[in-house]
Amino acid sequence: MARILTLTLNPALDLTLRLASLQPGAINRCDELRSHAAGKGLNVAQVLADLGHSLSVSGFLGRANAAPFERLMQARGFHDLFVRVPGETRSNIKLAEADGRITDLNGPGPQVEAEHLQHLEEELQPLLAGHDAVVVAGSLPRGVTTQWFTSLLRRIKASGVPLVVDSSGAALQAALGVVPWLIKPNEEELREACGSDLPAAITRLRGQGIEHVLLSRGADGVEWHGPGIALRAVPPRVEVASTVGAGDSLLAASLHGLLQGWPAERTLRLATAVAAQAVTQIGFGIHDREQLARFEAAVQLHRPEQ
Amino acid sequence: MARILTLTLNPALDLTLRLASLQPGAINRCDELRSHAAGKGLNVAQVLADLGHSLSVSGFLGRANAAPFERLMQARGFHDLFVRVPGETRSNIKLAEADGRITDLNGPGPQVEAEHLQHLEEELQPLLAGHDAVVVAGSLPRGVTTQWFTSLLRRIKASGVPLVVDSSGAALQAALGVVPWLIKPNEEELREACGSDLPAAITRLRGQGIEHVLLSRGADGVEWHGPGIALRAVPPRVEVASTVGAGDSLLAASLHGLLQGWPAERTLRLATAVAAQAVTQIGFGIHDREQLARFEAAVQLHRPEQ
Repeated sequence: MARILTLTLNPALDLTLRLASLQPGAINRCDELRSHAAGKGLNVAQVLADLGHSLSVSGFLGRANAAPFERLMQARGFHDLFVRVPGETRSNIKLAEADGRITDLNGPGPQVEAEHLQHLEEELQPLLAGHDAVVVAGSLPRGVTTQWFTSLLRRIKASGVPLVVDSSGAALQAALGVVPWLIKPNEEELREACGSDLPAAITRLRGQGIEHVLLSRGADGVEWHGPGIALRAVPPRVEVASTVGAGDSLLAASLHGLLQGWPAERTLRLATAVAAQAVTQIGFGIHDREQLARFEAAVQLHRPEQ
Repeated sequence: MARILTLTLNPALDLTLRLASLQPGAINRCDELRSHAAGKGLNVAQVLADLGHSLSVSGFLGRANAAPFERLMQARGFHDLFVRVPGETRSNIKLAEADGRITDLNGPGPQVEAEHLQHLEEELQPLLAGHDAVVVAGSLPRGVTTQWFTSLLRRIKASGVPLVVDSSGAALQAALGVVPWLIKPNEEELREACGSDLPAAITRLRGQGIEHVLLSRGADGVEWHGPGIALRAVPPRVEVASTVGAGDSLLAASLHGLLQGWPAERTLRLATAVAAQAVTQIGFGIHDREQLARFEAAVQLHRPEQ
């Protein structure tokens, strides 16, 4: 299978606390507290590993709480290329109340210094050409400028390896200038970067040389615009447990189909089904092949709406 | 200096998040997130180390997030006798809003199994006699019954090493039956264990053989009842930054004076000042010897109120 490098510049330790109801100003006892190593690039890597690929993972990791990330990488057999920085990787805390209300508490990340930027560049440079694709996903930590980010993406592109970018805001804006091979914005992210006329934006981006634009539209599914490809997939209706990792699942399975040389329809059917399966779970990943096959069969493929 | 063992059966990873104001149901961005390894026995150990003693520390630690505890023990030169258990040590999250409101979110701890209880007993048994005092502090994790706790305290007492207990609820109740050398309840804890007539309770406990009763009364200071000792100390007025670790500081410095053979007045003056200094800090510990000397001079000593 393929050798894929994912970059998560700003990973996060996700803590989920379940409690009856949040009482601000009081002592709240939680029934359950789960923590897990997270971050878009790491999520993509896990789904790609489920699909049989060999993964290298990199980015910046706070040294003070690296252990859960190291356990994840070890358990999944990932090649650990993360550059350690002083301090803690950010924690994102989710308070889940019994009535379904979710309160998010997102911590600040560590400060990345010039030496760490250089370290990452030097580490990745000789390894890039050995991969079949590089996926850069998620936000930028403190200390990483869009200027440095752009130059990193340029180096990856110059290595000739297909560059996949999933980001938002200024980072996505910067990435578009580098013309990645594939991007996967959602509607809001693309609107923010390119204005409200999404069909026109997609045509323009493809004209600039971005080969594949995957536009995720939540429960309405996904549009795929590529060379000779204009498809819209609508997922089966599923009970939503958590949308965490759904977009990352879509991206991972799309990349899988592309690297396998599958027809677009087969690729998009799988990708939509893997994302739908992620939504049915508190986590994500391909744990039930039979359910996945049912979901694949239930995906509806159309021409994109004009 | 002395060799002291502290037992923290139920340590906690404390996470403090600062944010402008908590918006339940929304995504809240936090300005600061600090995590640190905590637990009463570990806090006591740190203050005792500040006072020059040699520390062994034990209890149960969740293997999955042991790293911050291991870093603390290594940094402070503690002898690590913690028994590792599967899962995560509990996390206690404190949300500190700009207006001073604090919301606590206390997670459940790991489950301690019979094999871990046995492991702890076997590990401690040969080491007890090599210590000058054993401090057992804090609550009991899931899987630790008051029956097992009582038998552990009995073994410690049988080794002939002075036993110090700081706990509450059923654990304190169980400990009183073992007749420790020193206890340090606060008013609420003593009331819960022994009824509302605190002077009568103290007289009864001392009659049963508990040598030293330190009753902490928050900003009103502390009472010390011991052999030929009946003292009340009122701390200087200080600006409160956080009361975390104040009781543990009081206990540690009292034990220090007792082990040094100091006069009761000198001991209580120091202990009250170290606790007052803890209150002026977000953390605790003796970091400013000059301020400590000023606080010591400002402590007022009286006879206990009847």
